[in-house]
Amino acid sequence: MKRALQLAKLGLGHTNPNPLVGAVIVKNGRIIGEGYHEYYGGPHAEINALKSVKEDVIGAQLYVTLEPCCHYGKTPPCVDAIVKSGIKDVFIAMEDPNKLVSGKGIKHLKEAGLNVYTGLLKEEAEKINEIFIKYITTKKPYVILKSAMTIDGKIATYTGDSKWITNEKSREHVHIMRGCVMAIMVGVNTVIKDNPYLTARIDGFKNPLRVVVDSRGRIPLEANVVIDKSAKTIVATTDMMPYKKVKALRDLGVDVFVLDKLNGEVDLKKLMDMLGERGIDSVIIEGGGTLNYSALKEGIVDKVMFYIAPKIIGGSNSLTPVEGKGIDLIKDAIMIEKLDVKRFDDDILIEGYIKK
Amino acid sequence: MKRALQLAKLGLGHTNPNPLVGAVIVKNGRIIGEGYHEYYGGPHAEINALKSVKEDVIGAQLYVTLEPCCHYGKTPPCVDAIVKSGIKDVFIAMEDPNKLVSGKGIKHLKEAGLNVYTGLLKEEAEKINEIFIKYITTKKPYVILKSAMTIDGKIATYTGDSKWITNEKSREHVHIMRGCVMAIMVGVNTVIKDNPYLTARIDGFKNPLRVVVDSRGRIPLEANVVIDKSAKTIVATTDMMPYKKVKALRDLGVDVFVLDKLNGEVDLKKLMDMLGERGIDSVIIEGGGTLNYSALKEGIVDKVMFYIAPKIIGGSNSLTPVEGKGIDLIKDAIMIEKLDVKRFDDDILIEGYIKK
Repeated sequence: MKRALQLAKLGLGHTNPNPLVGAVIVKNGRIIGEGYHEYYGGPHAEINALKSVKEDVIGAQLYVTLEPCCHYGKTPPCVDAIVKSGIKDVFIAMEDPNKLVSGKGIKHLKEAGLNVYTGLLKEEAEKINEIFIKYITTKKPYVILKSAMTIDGKIATYTGDSKWITNEKSREHVHIMRGCVMAIMVGVNTVIKDNPYLTARIDGFKNPLRVVVDSRGRIPLEANVVIDKSAKTIVATTDMMPYKKVKALRDLGVDVFVLDKLNGEVDLKKLMDMLGERGIDSVIIEGGGTLNYSALKEGIVDKVMFYIAPKIIGGSNSLTPVEGKGIDLIKDAIMIEKLDVKRFDDDILIEGYIKK
Repeated sequence: MKRALQLAKLGLGHTNPNPLVGAVIVKNGRIIGEGYHEYYGGPHAEINALKSVKEDVIGAQLYVTLEPCCHYGKTPPCVDAIVKSGIKDVFIAMEDPNKLVSGKGIKHLKEAGLNVYTGLLKEEAEKINEIFIKYITTKKPYVILKSAMTIDGKIATYTGDSKWITNEKSREHVHIMRGCVMAIMVGVNTVIKDNPYLTARIDGFKNPLRVVVDSRGRIPLEANVVIDKSAKTIVATTDMMPYKKVKALRDLGVDVFVLDKLNGEVDLKKLMDMLGERGIDSVIIEGGGTLNYSALKEGIVDKVMFYIAPKIIGGSNSLTPVEGKGIDLIKDAIMIEKLDVKRFDDDILIEGYIKK
């Protein structure tokens, strides 16, 4: 199953909004076939594994990270192919999180006389598919908030300098993360100040959709995210953006969503619903402190990733990763759980999940 | 030698400003004696180890974490006792950092015909005596800057609430740290806002000296650090403190140092010199952002310890661990090196050394 999970991860960034799945076929204690879900709409892991086998699979064991499907989607049901192949035992890490089909694949296999065992390395399987699990169950994108800061909690000096806080390895990791999600979201302040491209810049990864939250329509028409066509851009705004600006952006090929206001800003929950409806299963927020605070306060964030550089810049007017009004009392703080610490040379990545 | 280092650490908090030293005597591959430097002015580790032996030490091996002394200090020279004992081989982790005597003990042992080997676990030995090494070589205290912050880099909410950011285990670790240094330093703002006791509150540890930096004389006469007599308090000020206030504090048993000004504040380098002259080998700064910035900017800090809680409070007006004016550009940031990450349940401690 460990090998199946490794295989599953090879699909990272290419299967969204479908899951990462890996499969291994074993006979007489020897691996005779392997496969994974390689790209969105492509053949499922089990089918690829069966196809890779060069010998007789009758009586073999199948290890698969996600419950095989029993319905026609973009491809025919996998359970039929498994039953037909003559495989005897099926080990499944996790059931399908899609409530409409969950357990049906397992039932089908059992009814066909196969031995089915579930739960092996379930936690790991759930972790690699955290995006898929949320999206399939809620139709809302999985939201990751990412920030790069100094160890004294600053994202820019008081003069506005922020290049570069973290080291090359950390920034490369961010680019991989960008390649693994379907959208990247920033506030308009970031566009005005840093004029970023917000692209993945990693071979083999596509660029995510760019989403700029701009309640009042301050985005410059000559911004890189407007002009650069290596990725699509959505500007999420409110009726405070002048219609002329909406039209100008649309003429430049930018999608403009005019959304309801919440406290005078774009209603981020509504924005997430809208992105979910358009098939966006995951968003990484790389906002400044204002957008980060709104996103956390409105409860749309699932996971946080803080890249911490071993630098101190100080400054009572320096920018910090989460600003806005702030929480009144420590006891009401937004809590992070299941913390994990990684090192990128001297940078430290702390990641965790928002306690709901 | 590992065992000798373990023994050395048993003296933590009791030997300052003298070093932590451990010693083990081995004969025929068996430990026959152990000892450590237990308290300031007490017998040295080697002597305690020799005393603990219940058999003949002739031909034995001595493992000691620091070069044995060859001069009369508070106790007679250890080298004489070692030579006299009949020990044959001496393994020394690190040489004496005191340049006046460094290498002399080793030379003496060699001249007496003993085999001397140095450098075994040298790095570990240097680490446990980082305070002693700095103090003996510079006569200035070793300075640790400690801060407890949320993962978004805040030490208090915008309303001023800071109790408690970190968990019990972290706070207990801070109390142990306080017990291992000779002084604890805060800014007057911390005294006014939090009215802390600044005591170690850990059985078996003495309270450190309290140092309050108060350039203009704003400390309340009824503050806990003034009234509470479980530790001594020094107020470091400038000629901006009215003489009446100086006298009132002195009448209450508080030491008042009137120091030179640097940019209108207490000159912290001068303060460190003064503390060093009084035998203070180590200071932990638990200041607010203003004092922390001054200390870092003036270059008096050796080590930083950031306790990070898995909480987010946000707020553009919340307090951060390092404030002041701040550094202009990221490339000129104060750099931290040799980072180490520890966990206290869900809290994370990042510690490192200021790159000089």
